[in-house]
Amino acid sequence: MQFELKHTTGGSKARAGFITTDHGTIETPIFMPVGTAGSVKGIHKRDLKEDIGAQIILGNTYHLYLRPGLSIIEQAGGLHKFNGWDGPILTDSGGYQVFSLGDIRKLSEEGAKFQSHIDGSAHLFTPENVMDTQRTIGADIMMAFDECTPGDAEYEYARKSMEMTQRWLDRCWNQFEKTAPKYGYSQSLFPIVQGAVYPALREIAARNVLQYNADGYAIGGLSVGEPEKDMYAMIEVVNEILPENKPRYLMGVGTPVNILEGIDRGIDMFDCVMPTRNGRNGMLFTSKGVMNMRNKKWADDFSPIDPDGTSFVDHHYSRAFLRHLIIAGEMLGAQIASQHNLAFYLWLVKEARMHILNDTFKSWKEEMVQQLSVRL
Amino acid sequence: MQFELKHTTGGSKARAGFITTDHGTIETPIFMPVGTAGSVKGIHKRDLKEDIGAQIILGNTYHLYLRPGLSIIEQAGGLHKFNGWDGPILTDSGGYQVFSLGDIRKLSEEGAKFQSHIDGSAHLFTPENVMDTQRTIGADIMMAFDECTPGDAEYEYARKSMEMTQRWLDRCWNQFEKTAPKYGYSQSLFPIVQGAVYPALREIAARNVLQYNADGYAIGGLSVGEPEKDMYAMIEVVNEILPENKPRYLMGVGTPVNILEGIDRGIDMFDCVMPTRNGRNGMLFTSKGVMNMRNKKWADDFSPIDPDGTSFVDHHYSRAFLRHLIIAGEMLGAQIASQHNLAFYLWLVKEARMHILNDTFKSWKEEMVQQLSVRL
Ligand SMILES: [Zn+2]
Ligand SMILES: [Zn+2]
Repeated sequence: MQFELKHTTGGSKARAGFITTDHGTIETPIFMPVGTAGSVKGIHKRDLKEDIGAQIILGNTYHLYLRPGLSIIEQAGGLHKFNGWDGPILTDSGGYQVFSLGDIRKLSEEGAKFQSHIDGSAHLFTPENVMDTQRTIGADIMMAFDECTPGDAEYEYARKSMEMTQRWLDRCWNQFEKTAPKYGYSQSLFPIVQGAVYPALREIAARNVLQYNADGYAIGGLSVGEPEKDMYAMIEVVNEILPENKPRYLMGVGTPVNILEGIDRGIDMFDCVMPTRNGRNGMLFTSKGVMNMRNKKWADDFSPIDPDGTSFVDHHYSRAFLRHLIIAGEMLGAQIASQHNLAFYLWLVKEARMHILNDTFKSWKEEMVQQLSVRL
Repeated sequence: MQFELKHTTGGSKARAGFITTDHGTIETPIFMPVGTAGSVKGIHKRDLKEDIGAQIILGNTYHLYLRPGLSIIEQAGGLHKFNGWDGPILTDSGGYQVFSLGDIRKLSEEGAKFQSHIDGSAHLFTPENVMDTQRTIGADIMMAFDECTPGDAEYEYARKSMEMTQRWLDRCWNQFEKTAPKYGYSQSLFPIVQGAVYPALREIAARNVLQYNADGYAIGGLSVGEPEKDMYAMIEVVNEILPENKPRYLMGVGTPVNILEGIDRGIDMFDCVMPTRNGRNGMLFTSKGVMNMRNKKWADDFSPIDPDGTSFVDHHYSRAFLRHLIIAGEMLGAQIASQHNLAFYLWLVKEARMHILNDTFKSWKEEMVQQLSVRL
């Protein structure tokens, strides 16, 4: 994997670049649709590529490990072959999902014991076996196994958690170096910077990861309940330390505004379930603001969903019809809203990139942040 | 609406023809995908037209009346404008849905009182108001309001039920004649022949409908629990009486084999929820037989879903991946299976038509009926 920094712009840390993987080149900043179980919910891969314009998707190690399981993925020749997506794929480490399990997981220096949410069976994730699992899934970009510290963690808890994440990172790295890709293309491993909302911890964590000279770095444990201003402050602290010449991935973030604020602070990669999950609940993100399609005001609005939208769904369906589908619980409503939102997210980062290259990012972003917050 | 009988074939009652509506021409025999609430579940209308090749879709009066309601549909300018499907639409009369409500509906000479399955509110469907409702929905083909007699009804019950359906038909016809289309294109009304599994009743009912000189005729109350041989026998009795120069619609039927047997007996139009409903449950119909995608045997079958299939999904996804999606309850699994099944049904009737025109229908059909029954 290579990262080429193409342009930085005045008055902002925003950057435009290219990430080149063996499955193709990604223009950054980029948003990565989440394909939990190997498929982006409700979206045909043809539409993901051609209509939404996704350049890289994310798979969840926890979900794929449980179902279909590693044996099937390996027999298929890796996740790309299994799900038919031939562009770049990033897998998370399963850390976030395991820690979300709450009572049915137990953490120790060794790793995380947990029960499957599907059948209650017992499993252990360690830094080593999570590397092996991601080798088998065959993601272009693998993530280190970390503890995702809760947003409201006390300093002492956050410090210990971050230190364990650092020890785990070392074990991840060793295992990564000891093993090879299985399917003939190369894989990169990104360390994750934790440290909750404590600048001092974030600084230590950011300096620590530099020793691995990785192909890219991630910032984790944000957008997990902490105030937004803390999230932005942490990004600033960490990005001061992370090298300029490597991509920076802000994990699990977020709203369109969060993404623009992240870009403004030098983030290159984002992922979030929000466009699909909120879409299924009837919430649309548009360049003019947020639409709650359950709202009665759309019932007799027969105009297209989003006249400025880039997806075919924006022009093929009316607001009134989409509202009807959402209210009636019709699957097609979830599909349309998910497709619109993903296309919007991809449009947003593409537009951001263009404004970075034009040196008009800062003023465009300020205007957009206002607009995106409007409730339509 | 016009029907042009283009060709009949030797050794069979099978017919090929054209139905021309103000929203376009339909090649018969035809299968009509069911769009209960104005949308075919899980299918974008673009794919319905371009990938599946649907020529006419069905809407459910009961569902559309309750949600979004007539006021919204009328404001939109009819269902075509509301859902964006600009091809022909047929609406059922709501009779079948209302009678399926069981305990929460009450039947009388006046009509059917029922409670909404959505909010429990009380409603009355009469032959007259169901005509008005279908005028407002704006279907190209409207259906008479009938009682769908249960498949196991005793003769006396079936006779009385059929006679009420006949009186209701007369009221439907009067109301249809007294009212005009609302949106500038013409609408046809199809009477429905009932009579359960009693040839004598079916004969009476079939002769009765002829007095209206309708644009087409339907056979209802089949595939509702009676043995298949009874269904085929009833089709034969009724089609002996229905005129050659009008299309014949077998309501709510059925499996691919049922459809070929219906075509062989002179049926021109079919509808059924089976391709979408069974698809959502993981059942695929193919030209080689039926596949239950939940079956473990598909878990490591990485070949395309259906190498002979006409839909893009047949070639873009593997059996193993589809099985994974179905088992994981991923929405995309239901979408893929529904799309495959609908494309298969449309392929089947198109192929049947070609063989009718070629005079090779009978031998092709016998071979297909064998093949379609195989469990893969
Ligand atoms: Zn998120
Ligand atoms: Zn049916």
